[in-house]
Amino acid sequence: SNGSWFRNTDVALPNRFGNTHKSKHGEVRVVGGHQNMAGAALIATQAALNAGAGRVYLHCDPRYFAASVSHSPEIMLLDHIDFHDRQSIWVVGPGLGRDLHADQVMKQFICPDHHLAPWRGVLDADALRYIARVPQFNAGNCVLTPHEGEAADLLGWSIDCVQQDRAAAALALSVKFQTVVVLKGAGTLVCEGERLIFCHTGTPAMATAGMGDCLAGVIGALMAQGLSAFDAAICGVNWHASLGAILANTQRVVLASDIIAKLKYQYKA
Amino acid sequence: SNGSWFRNTDVALPNRFGNTHKSKHGEVRVVGGHQNMAGAALIATQAALNAGAGRVYLHCDPRYFAASVSHSPEIMLLDHIDFHDRQSIWVVGPGLGRDLHADQVMKQFICPDHHLAPWRGVLDADALRYIARVPQFNAGNCVLTPHEGEAADLLGWSIDCVQQDRAAAALALSVKFQTVVVLKGAGTLVCEGERLIFCHTGTPAMATAGMGDCLAGVIGALMAQGLSAFDAAICGVNWHASLGAILANTQRVVLASDIIAKLKYQYKA
Amino acid sequence: SNGSWFRNTDVALPNRFGNTHKSKHGEVRVVGGHQNMAGAALIATQAALNAGAGRVYLHCDPRYFAASVSHSPEIMLLDHIDFHDRQSIWVVGPGLGRDLHADQVMKQFICPDHHLAPWRGVLDADALRYIARVPQFNAGNCVLTPHEGEAADLLGWSIDCVQQDRAAAALALSVKFQTVVVLKGAGTLVCEGERLIFCHTGTPAMATAGMGDCLAGVIGALMAQGLSAFDAAICGVNWHASLGAILANTQRVVLASDIIAKLKYQYKA
Amino acid sequence: SNGSWFRNTDVALPNRFGNTHKSKHGEVRVVGGHQNMAGAALIATQAALNAGAGRVYLHCDPRYFAASVSHSPEIMLLDHIDFHDRQSIWVVGPGLGRDLHADQVMKQFICPDHHLAPWRGVLDADALRYIARVPQFNAGNCVLTPHEGEAADLLGWSIDCVQQDRAAAALALSVKFQTVVVLKGAGTLVCEGERLIFCHTGTPAMATAGMGDCLAGVIGALMAQGLSAFDAAICGVNWHASLGAILANTQRVVLASDIIAKLKYQYKA
Repeated sequence: SNGSWFRNTDVALPNRFGNTHKSKHGEVRVVGGHQNMAGAALIATQAALNAGAGRVYLHCDPRYFAASVSHSPEIMLLDHIDFHDRQSIWVVGPGLGRDLHADQVMKQFICPDHHLAPWRGVLDADALRYIARVPQFNAGNCVLTPHEGEAADLLGWSIDCVQQDRAAAALALSVKFQTVVVLKGAGTLVCEGERLIFCHTGTPAMATAGMGDCLAGVIGALMAQGLSAFDAAICGVNWHASLGAILANTQRVVLASDIIAKLKYQYKA
Repeated sequence: SNGSWFRNTDVALPNRFGNTHKSKHGEVRVVGGHQNMAGAALIATQAALNAGAGRVYLHCDPRYFAASVSHSPEIMLLDHIDFHDRQSIWVVGPGLGRDLHADQVMKQFICPDHHLAPWRGVLDADALRYIARVPQFNAGNCVLTPHEGEAADLLGWSIDCVQQDRAAAALALSVKFQTVVVLKGAGTLVCEGERLIFCHTGTPAMATAGMGDCLAGVIGALMAQGLSAFDAAICGVNWHASLGAILANTQRVVLASDIIAKLKYQYKA
Repeated sequence: SNGSWFRNTDVALPNRFGNTHKSKHGEVRVVGGHQNMAGAALIATQAALNAGAGRVYLHCDPRYFAASVSHSPEIMLLDHIDFHDRQSIWVVGPGLGRDLHADQVMKQFICPDHHLAPWRGVLDADALRYIARVPQFNAGNCVLTPHEGEAADLLGWSIDCVQQDRAAAALALSVKFQTVVVLKGAGTLVCEGERLIFCHTGTPAMATAGMGDCLAGVIGALMAQGLSAFDAAICGVNWHASLGAILANTQRVVLASDIIAKLKYQYKA
Repeated sequence: SNGSWFRNTDVALPNRFGNTHKSKHGEVRVVGGHQNMAGAALIATQAALNAGAGRVYLHCDPRYFAASVSHSPEIMLLDHIDFHDRQSIWVVGPGLGRDLHADQVMKQFICPDHHLAPWRGVLDADALRYIARVPQFNAGNCVLTPHEGEAADLLGWSIDCVQQDRAAAALALSVKFQTVVVLKGAGTLVCEGERLIFCHTGTPAMATAGMGDCLAGVIGALMAQGLSAFDAAICGVNWHASLGAILANTQRVVLASDIIAKLKYQYKA
């Protein structure tokens, strides 16, 4: 593959300065959690909260609002999608589903004429399945976080093809969608244009459901705290994987909830 | 600014004496949590419970009653506002909203003819937005806990104006509403008449959603345990900020839930 | 006062023998938690579970069933009251209320002709308010756990009268209802006939809502594990208060949930 | 009894290899939790998740979906039973009930003509009561996990008869249903054909409701991670009992939730 290829395991979290206010640490708004997939969206919000976003909102099936409040009363709930605050970071996709409801949600995020999203954030999971069907989509302000299956869908490649040259796939995705791409898996790649970074490999203990939702929330929170999309992606992947590796010293299985519980602590490599 | 200005970081919690009964430690009744803002009210109740109120009640959107019970079964639920127990401390505002429902709730707390609240407690958050529109409101028995935006609204000043001379704003609020005012922010001020106290500055780790709701619950609980409004405000602000500072030794981000979990322990500076 | 008066702070928990099965440790069925008072019933069930009952059932407002499952999935739920298993210990009253619903529930427990309860268990809280209105009620198989207000109601005395001679009140209750009585308060008394035991005084840190519900669940669990009503009452009061005292070494405020969390551990004085 | 009889207390958990993906650790789908028995199904899902299944799904009364999400957002929810993924391990029975609903669910798992289940997994609790009524049922791909009462029902023996010769009962069950049988109780037996293994005896502290549901989830998770039904049964019984014994060093009562919380840690005997 072409592109600058090097390994990066740095975790440089944004500083939190004195005389600060929660609005300085930004807002994250998670959109997903349709019907019976609310858990994915809850995980993303909890990750964003613990990763330091000043305010975190959840837009999901309202039948799960009380579950969110019971679990994390700090998280606020949204009945509808509202772009009045352009400073918000949107994390779109965890548990969104792929039905008509998902299409209706995604149409609010995808501008039909020039296909350019007027907002910043993370496109994850089912949102990626949706944009795979949008012709000439430019995701300029959004990080894409596909695993290999979603990457294959986005590129029109086979999954085997993606896995045989993951670097090529990451580069192709970044070029095609003109944005930062996080290609998840064993040996996660972060790519923007020709810059290709090989990040933490994580640990097999982290091979559990919900880890991707957690990562999306972390990257969103880092963007909300002022990191560029590229830096947020690299920092988020490394932070997430490093915490997993630390937990795996004592745990055979690491859950997303375990990572979330550690995010709020001072980070020590 | 005029007024006696000095720094106070004391935390002198009310003693709990032997042969005591929960009714001796008072009741706190939290009113707020309308529709999708229940989390704010839950945080205030949990803070009041852990800060030592003998009984804590929650009046919020009933759709969130079960969430409260699941999280904190010690908290009791209220279908309607009932002033039969004038000894209760009311914490009004967290997650109340600013719609017609909020207006109806607030009309029960604001006596229309002489505008004097016949009850004691804390007016926070959206309740402050409401009283900003009540002419010649005398909040004599209630602590007001605005942040700079709410303070600006209450005074008819700009936010910049408030921030440029926070002491003047606190003094003006105390004079205008004839009560104790807690002006929140980096360097929280407590003011009653000409007495102006500069309290703990907190920590940037505490710049997260829900911290104000937590503080309102703490101040309410201290009033319920017998402190004067002024003492409860100072003690509450310092206690809240001190716990945050202690937690920030190990945490990059401190959540309201983290403060709440610490409130029940013996306090050591 | 007459009666044998001595101090007892022993905690002699039932042994759990090898080759055992959950049915050997008995069932506790908690009845209460009407409408907005579900938390009290949840506390009693959780206490009974952690205190070692093999199976614990909750009969409460079904709107809170999911809250119970989310908090404690080990607790089973009951739609209706069913006496088919006469071996069950019933804990009746926490959060029951005093309305028509409560009356209907209580009529299932109080046999109208001879007023003798055909079941064993604990009558607490609102159930005591109900039996105060039942003429010549013989509570032979049930422990009564009134605080001074409920005791006054049961005896037709003033609260001051109860508090001025708590021993006389406990003895009078035991004689009137022909059963074991736990008169709660600072210096809890356990009385059966002429036997009058002064138990742990607890700690002011325990003066919080829900503590009585917790105690009722503990006494029920001890009866289910084979202790007599009298022994369960003494052991339960002492255990509950001792755990509170231990927690108060580090906690300014001790919640029912804190006691519950400790019940499952090996007890060390 | 005939059969090879020896004691086995080994816990050989499946390794989690590098470059892994959650799909490599398999899926567990728990079916049960009808009406007021949802807790049992939640316990089984949580056990499967913590025991290392890559993805865990819950099919239960939808009124408890939010309770599951609030407790464990990593668990996914199923509206209907769908066999499209034949690789899934199904854990059927916890809290299923024995009514018409249970019959309808079970008919989806029991093929009416040849009575052979086309799926792999665990049949537990009420599912065993159902198959006791299916003539000539061959459970070839499923582990059966009866306690003595269910075993008696499955064999048409009395419970006393089962308990008097538990080894004979286990062997008879394995022959009759042509599969692996776990006969739970004090001294759990695992039997397949003539192989009869005596496993950990557990501890009386574990005699609490929900332990069987927990074990079913553990065995399902081990099958999902690649163990044979026989190995999963032995490993699951020993792991479950060993964790209980470790917890009983400090706990008088061990709850299913306590076991679940330990499952995710590295195992040390």
